[in-house]
Amino acid sequence: MTLCISLAARPSNIGTRFHNYLYDALGLNFVYKAFAPTDLGQAVAGIRGLGIRGAAVSMPYKEDVIALVDVMDASAAAIDSVNTIVNDGGILTAYNTDYLAIARLLAANKIPPATTVLLRGSGGMAKAVAAALRDAGLTRVTIVARNEAAGRTLAGLYGFDWLPEAESETAQLLVNVTPLGMAGADENVQPFSDAQVRAAQVVFDVVALPSETPLVKAARTAGRDVITGAEVIAIQAEEQFVLYTGARPSPELVRAASAFSREQSPDDA
Amino acid sequence: MTLCISLAARPSNIGTRFHNYLYDALGLNFVYKAFAPTDLGQAVAGIRGLGIRGAAVSMPYKEDVIALVDVMDASAAAIDSVNTIVNDGGILTAYNTDYLAIARLLAANKIPPATTVLLRGSGGMAKAVAAALRDAGLTRVTIVARNEAAGRTLAGLYGFDWLPEAESETAQLLVNVTPLGMAGADENVQPFSDAQVRAAQVVFDVVALPSETPLVKAARTAGRDVITGAEVIAIQAEEQFVLYTGARPSPELVRAASAFSREQSPDDA
Repeated sequence: MTLCISLAARPSNIGTRFHNYLYDALGLNFVYKAFAPTDLGQAVAGIRGLGIRGAAVSMPYKEDVIALVDVMDASAAAIDSVNTIVNDGGILTAYNTDYLAIARLLAANKIPPATTVLLRGSGGMAKAVAAALRDAGLTRVTIVARNEAAGRTLAGLYGFDWLPEAESETAQLLVNVTPLGMAGADENVQPFSDAQVRAAQVVFDVVALPSETPLVKAARTAGRDVITGAEVIAIQAEEQFVLYTGARPSPELVRAASAFSREQSPDDA
Repeated sequence: MTLCISLAARPSNIGTRFHNYLYDALGLNFVYKAFAPTDLGQAVAGIRGLGIRGAAVSMPYKEDVIALVDVMDASAAAIDSVNTIVNDGGILTAYNTDYLAIARLLAANKIPPATTVLLRGSGGMAKAVAAALRDAGLTRVTIVARNEAAGRTLAGLYGFDWLPEAESETAQLLVNVTPLGMAGADENVQPFSDAQVRAAQVVFDVVALPSETPLVKAARTAGRDVITGAEVIAIQAEEQFVLYTGARPSPELVRAASAFSREQSPDDA
C-alpha cells in the first residue's frame, strides 16, 4: 500500500477526504493521511526514509521546503513556492499545483494575451496568479494592493503595473486574490464594484469559501464568465492526484470527490 | 488521528491487522501501517518529524536502531535489541516486547528460580529467552547450540553453561528457539526427544508457525505444561499495543485480534 500525506501546521481533512475518496473509487492501493510535522526537516527525511509517495505542503512550509527537495518543477520555481512533493525512488520533486490549476483555468477560458487585467492582492496566491498570467503571455496587468511594498514587489517580479486602489479602473479580466468576500468578517464585501464587473468579460474570484461570493454572484447576475476558487481547489487537488498516482480521474469523479471533501465531518480529522 | 507503523525489510501484514483490529474494536482514533524503509536514519527522523506515535522494528533493524533512539528501556537494554519504539513528544524510547512477553509467560507459568533448563538456540530470540530466564532468577540453564562461538558467547553473557548437543540430558524446562519444527524443511523435526519431554515439567517452543509443532504435540501427549510461540507473538503484540495506546485490551479481544491477524489476506499487504 502506498502512502501520501499532507504537511500543515493546522491540518484540515479536506485533502484527506478528496484523495481517499478517489483511491477508493479507482481501486488504488493508496492511503492518504494528514500530518502536523514537529520538524519540517525530519518530516521530509521521513518522506524519503519511509518511501512516502507524495506530500501536500501547506502553510507555513511552502517556502522553507524548497531547500529540502531535490528538483524544483517549473510550476514551483515560477513562484518560489511548493505545495506538492513527489518522491520517485528517493528523488523529491517539488511542484505547485495552485499554479498549474490557475494556468489550466486561464487556458480553458481562452484568455487572450492582449487581455487587460486588474489583480487585487499581493500574497502567495496572488503571486501564483500573476506568474500564470505572465506565462500565458499577458502583459497588460495591474496589481492592485494597498500594501505598497508587497504590491510593487509582486508587480516588479512579472513586469506588471501597480496601483494602491483601482475603484475607477476597468479591465477585461478581474481577479480577486484578497480575503474580501470570504466567510467571516469580510463576507459581504465585494472587491470589485458592479460597474467594474459590468465592464469586464471574465471575473475570477480565488475565494473558495463560500463558493458563491458577492463578487461571483455579481458576475453571474451581469452574465459574465466566472472562474471560482472552488475550481482552483478542485483542479489543484486533481493535479496532485495525477502526480501521485499517474491516474487521471474523470471530471465527474473529481466533482464527486470535491463535494465529498467539503462535507462536514468533525470526527474525521 | 494517531499513526503507528512497522519498519521491516520485508513487511508482513500481521501486525497491521492485529493493531488495526484492536483500534476498531476499542474505538481508538489510531491507524497502523507497515513500511519498508529505504534508509533507517531517515525513517526514524520521520517518526520524530511526523509525530508518529510508535514503531515496531523488525529484521534487519533491531540493533542498528539503538543508536537512533533517546532512551533504552530495560527490556531492550537486556538483550541489545529493539522491537518497539514509543515517541513521547519527540523523545524516542526503545523497548523489546519479545523480552517482555517471555518474562510474562515465565511468570504466568510460575517457573521457580531453581528450575533446570535446556535452551536450544543461539540467535536473537534465544538471547531474549536467556535474559528473561536470568532476570527471573534462574541460574541452572544450559545453552545448547551447535555453533560453539555463538553458544559460548550467549552462555557467557548470562552466566549459563553451554553444550553443543544435549540428546542425553534432561531438564525441568525445555525451550526450543531453533527453527526445528517450523513450517518448511524442518517441519517434522522435534528438537527435544520424547524421553526429554517426559522428563520435563514445562515445554516452551518459540516456533509459532505452525502453532502445534511436533514438540508441542509431544508435550501435550505427555501431559506437560506447554508455552507456545503463538503466545509469545500475541503477548508481545499486546504489550506493543499497550505501550502505544495506554489501553489494555481484554484477553478475549487479544485472542480475536491475534486470530484475525493470522488469517490469509493476500490483498492486504
